[in-house]
Amino acid sequence: MRPVIVKLGGSVITDKSRKFRVRRRILERIADEIAECGEELIVVHGGGSFGHPVAKEYGLTEGFKNERQLKGFVLTHLAMVKLNQEIVKTFAFKGIPAVPVQPSACMVVSDGRIVEAELRPLRNMLSLGLLPVLFGDVVPDERRGFTILSGDQIVSFLAISLKAKRVVVGVDVDGVYTANPKISKSAELLKEIAPADLKRMSFGESSTDVTGGMYAKVSELFLPAKKGINVQIVNAMKPGILARAIKGETNLGTVVKAR
Amino acid sequence: MRPVIVKLGGSVITDKSRKFRVRRRILERIADEIAECGEELIVVHGGGSFGHPVAKEYGLTEGFKNERQLKGFVLTHLAMVKLNQEIVKTFAFKGIPAVPVQPSACMVVSDGRIVEAELRPLRNMLSLGLLPVLFGDVVPDERRGFTILSGDQIVSFLAISLKAKRVVVGVDVDGVYTANPKISKSAELLKEIAPADLKRMSFGESSTDVTGGMYAKVSELFLPAKKGINVQIVNAMKPGILARAIKGETNLGTVVKAR
Repeated sequence: MRPVIVKLGGSVITDKSRKFRVRRRILERIADEIAECGEELIVVHGGGSFGHPVAKEYGLTEGFKNERQLKGFVLTHLAMVKLNQEIVKTFAFKGIPAVPVQPSACMVVSDGRIVEAELRPLRNMLSLGLLPVLFGDVVPDERRGFTILSGDQIVSFLAISLKAKRVVVGVDVDGVYTANPKISKSAELLKEIAPADLKRMSFGESSTDVTGGMYAKVSELFLPAKKGINVQIVNAMKPGILARAIKGETNLGTVVKAR
Repeated sequence: MRPVIVKLGGSVITDKSRKFRVRRRILERIADEIAECGEELIVVHGGGSFGHPVAKEYGLTEGFKNERQLKGFVLTHLAMVKLNQEIVKTFAFKGIPAVPVQPSACMVVSDGRIVEAELRPLRNMLSLGLLPVLFGDVVPDERRGFTILSGDQIVSFLAISLKAKRVVVGVDVDGVYTANPKISKSAELLKEIAPADLKRMSFGESSTDVTGGMYAKVSELFLPAKKGINVQIVNAMKPGILARAIKGETNLGTVVKAR
């Protein structure tokens, strides 16, 4: 059992300019691609316009400071569950036996990193033929009180722990660029990216992403790449690309290299 | 840290005669009682008219038999998440920092029983001042494929694992009777119940409860009682009773005795 881990970026499945807005048609098309791919999958999705604005409003990225943040913890998690339900239901409607898996229920986090996780329930779900759907989540942190655990860190952790067949990260651009392509006209798409490249690049990030944007994403993805797992970042907005990447095709976006 | 474990029966918080119907006013009143009780709590709720009818429709109690049941697994879990969201949101609205905890994400079940669970995230939530809200759930089972894990088994497991201060089980009658008080006029309320009493009793159960009704509930609750934990079954429909039981008052319903 070596599942393919698929990340669905928050910018893909939600409209980041509008709070709590799912991009329904795109989500349905992605569900079709997943239904037909014929691979054993785990899906992890980001927060988009659900988790990020709430987490930002309550200052959750700074760790535990005051009781008021507990309300923010609850509201951020509820927003993420709401988005997760939208995705799972859309998948179920397309005949995919998708089930939510709550990261804050099974992952132990300390100082911002997953240090332990109970993965037997998830493995058992896969054995049954279910498709687990996890999500970036606000989680208790044994040193900071709580942490915003990014979907990317979950992807990286699961890929390594489960010895994933490959990792496919769906974003709303063609891959990793030398600069933010939404801002800079001279940004060039990279066919491959290695740790050394990261230093030379400039990422202008959108201000609502509480998990660090493309820089944090790529840094996270080097970890499974170093374990020899194929990691590719592709454009999930373009029909068919995600499905082809899930089936193992490369040269579709940016391949993340260990060095 | 010795939390009080509170079970909210499905018959209390939902109208069992109508699918997917929450008893909103009762739930709000219970939230008020919980907000004011001053104890560290974990809440576990049952399925009521959410989980049970779906699980029954897809024959989930019989374990894994065919692929069609996977749809039932997904729909039963989604129904339970929907109910859980209603409860958590009602609590949050009353200022209680309640967070969902998904049993199927953190509990490993084999042959119908919890054999392992990751409780560190839950303990960390309690330390932060959050109130974890778990629920009866359909879970992967390492021998049967899947199992309907009752809220009562979760209560019993958590009470023992966390050395609970006490257990309060809220139902829609005054406690345990010698027979089903909704059917039999000669049913008498028991102030205490011990394993030996169980054999002499007749439970006429409602046909939609897929977790075995009062007999299964009481059998489950003997387990923490045997570990010396105070367990009381009380009427959560009557205002104030639940709060008093949470604070430690006894003689409010039926006390579950080890022998």
